[in-house]
Amino acid sequence: MAARRILKNRMIGMRAIWLENNALSLRSDVPVPEPLAGEALVKVRSAGICATDLELVKGYYPFTGIPGHEFVGEIVQAPDRPERVGERVVGEINVGCGSCVSCLAGRSNHCEQRTVLGILNRHGAFAEYLCLPMKNLISIPEDVPDDAAVFVEPLAAALEIQQQIKILPTDRVLVLGAGRLGQLIAQTLVLTGCDLQVAARYNNQRELLAACNINWIAENAIAAQSYEVVVDATGSEKGFATARSAVRPRGTVVLKSTYRSHIQLNISSLIVDEITLVGSRCGPFAPALRLIEKGLVDPAILIEARYFLKNIRSAFERAAQAGVLKVIVHIGE
Amino acid sequence: MAARRILKNRMIGMRAIWLENNALSLRSDVPVPEPLAGEALVKVRSAGICATDLELVKGYYPFTGIPGHEFVGEIVQAPDRPERVGERVVGEINVGCGSCVSCLAGRSNHCEQRTVLGILNRHGAFAEYLCLPMKNLISIPEDVPDDAAVFVEPLAAALEIQQQIKILPTDRVLVLGAGRLGQLIAQTLVLTGCDLQVAARYNNQRELLAACNINWIAENAIAAQSYEVVVDATGSEKGFATARSAVRPRGTVVLKSTYRSHIQLNISSLIVDEITLVGSRCGPFAPALRLIEKGLVDPAILIEARYFLKNIRSAFERAAQAGVLKVIVHIGE
Repeated sequence: MAARRILKNRMIGMRAIWLENNALSLRSDVPVPEPLAGEALVKVRSAGICATDLELVKGYYPFTGIPGHEFVGEIVQAPDRPERVGERVVGEINVGCGSCVSCLAGRSNHCEQRTVLGILNRHGAFAEYLCLPMKNLISIPEDVPDDAAVFVEPLAAALEIQQQIKILPTDRVLVLGAGRLGQLIAQTLVLTGCDLQVAARYNNQRELLAACNINWIAENAIAAQSYEVVVDATGSEKGFATARSAVRPRGTVVLKSTYRSHIQLNISSLIVDEITLVGSRCGPFAPALRLIEKGLVDPAILIEARYFLKNIRSAFERAAQAGVLKVIVHIGE
Repeated sequence: MAARRILKNRMIGMRAIWLENNALSLRSDVPVPEPLAGEALVKVRSAGICATDLELVKGYYPFTGIPGHEFVGEIVQAPDRPERVGERVVGEINVGCGSCVSCLAGRSNHCEQRTVLGILNRHGAFAEYLCLPMKNLISIPEDVPDDAAVFVEPLAAALEIQQQIKILPTDRVLVLGAGRLGQLIAQTLVLTGCDLQVAARYNNQRELLAACNINWIAENAIAAQSYEVVVDATGSEKGFATARSAVRPRGTVVLKSTYRSHIQLNISSLIVDEITLVGSRCGPFAPALRLIEKGLVDPAILIEARYFLKNIRSAFERAAQAGVLKVIVHIGE
């Protein structure tokens, strides 16, 4: 990571969660980062635990440092834009180099030199403070509470599907998996008017969908070759096989899951059936925030448990349980 | 296959190529098929050998009967539309059931009950006569010679790419493979104004591309992560790996090749790089014919050798040689 001097006025250090060798620990003496040129220092208010965090702990990606990338916080230092101090913000987690072909083409999320908050070469949000470039920080309107704002990042990832493919109002769409991300995807896709079904395994997941007037079905009720679009948000290798079976010829499978290994792909059948596969990752923050602000999505209903930073291991254990939805970590105390 | 009576006025039988147990033979006593309701009897004038035919002989698909699906011929019987007798035609090779969800939605190419000329449950074009539904037969204008018309089927398959994805004039596009299909794909994609390069291995392939003012490059000159769209028309398993390496993040790989086995897919990297994979098969005939008629593509320059039906084995051997382009089989004599 880029060298940062310790803030002169914060010599005491901060509390932060440290991930090293697949283990999380609470440290109280981590140097408070100093914003580099163009960056701001953000005091984190709360942060969400996502599947990627769980995978990081399992060693899915090599990462040593402070994890966490879903957060809401407050700008406390902004050397280049002091007028923004005090803003409550969420933050785009990808930080591109700004000068490569990808960055110049507006695809800084795919910059080869990028850092990613709490995931790749950049300390994350399970800490009292984090740094991000000013341009990554989006101001949160007063009427959007922290509990909703903390979902802007995963909600943006859900919206990435519609950045990538066109969902027709007449499409039959299946979301596989009704976990944290599957719920948010469902809440965004239902807005298209499409004929949406969500394969949900657990009662709490089904109840949340019903509360949003979204149709759920059991996995064994999925009809073969019946959906124009299938979104795999299962987080399991089996999800792809189910998606492939459910999509109709000339349909699209969106890969919105975390796969730990390679899969065996019958590429010939993909050609005969003219299937499109779309890998999908991070998405646009501004429209995610707009949907929350207008009340068109209601992510906060996903919150299932709250923990303080000092109880991070319990928080991660809870988040890893089958069927558990969003676990929020409050940083304040 | 559907039972067909032998035509009463053609008791002698016809000459046809018979594929059985991975071997081709010339038969002179094959019953002339009688058109079913809605079908026409077509006297075949010439037919092209395509990679799929070569794969059929190798046992890639199980098929026993008369192969061949790229043809130009003349309607000699049309019980329901006698006024069409005498028309010179090419034919859409997929025959749907007409009543299933796919057929009713206009995707008869994906009807689960479909037959496919010379490929699936329907005798093909390496014969004096074939049957197809009238609605599958497209009339060929007088000024389009047989040597061009016989390419309408593979040219339609090339155009299927643009039926499926949008190619921007500003896109950098790479076609991998400059064989029979790769050349036709290149001739259609260059019309978009995109920045097109074709990875070509053999001198004759390069010369053909140069004759069409299409840029070719050597395979070792392909820059990594540099193309918005990569079309794999190599016909080899290695093609996919090359395509995956050449496409830029958020780009599209079109699978326009024949793969005999499963491939190991790193699905996680597909998600991180947000790659789209598109399986692509048969395409629309009418626009293919329009491009030929207007002189915007020139498929006949691909013809490398001509054989008569009786020399079919030599024709297939020639077509299977590395770098060889189109081999035409003349049925007349």
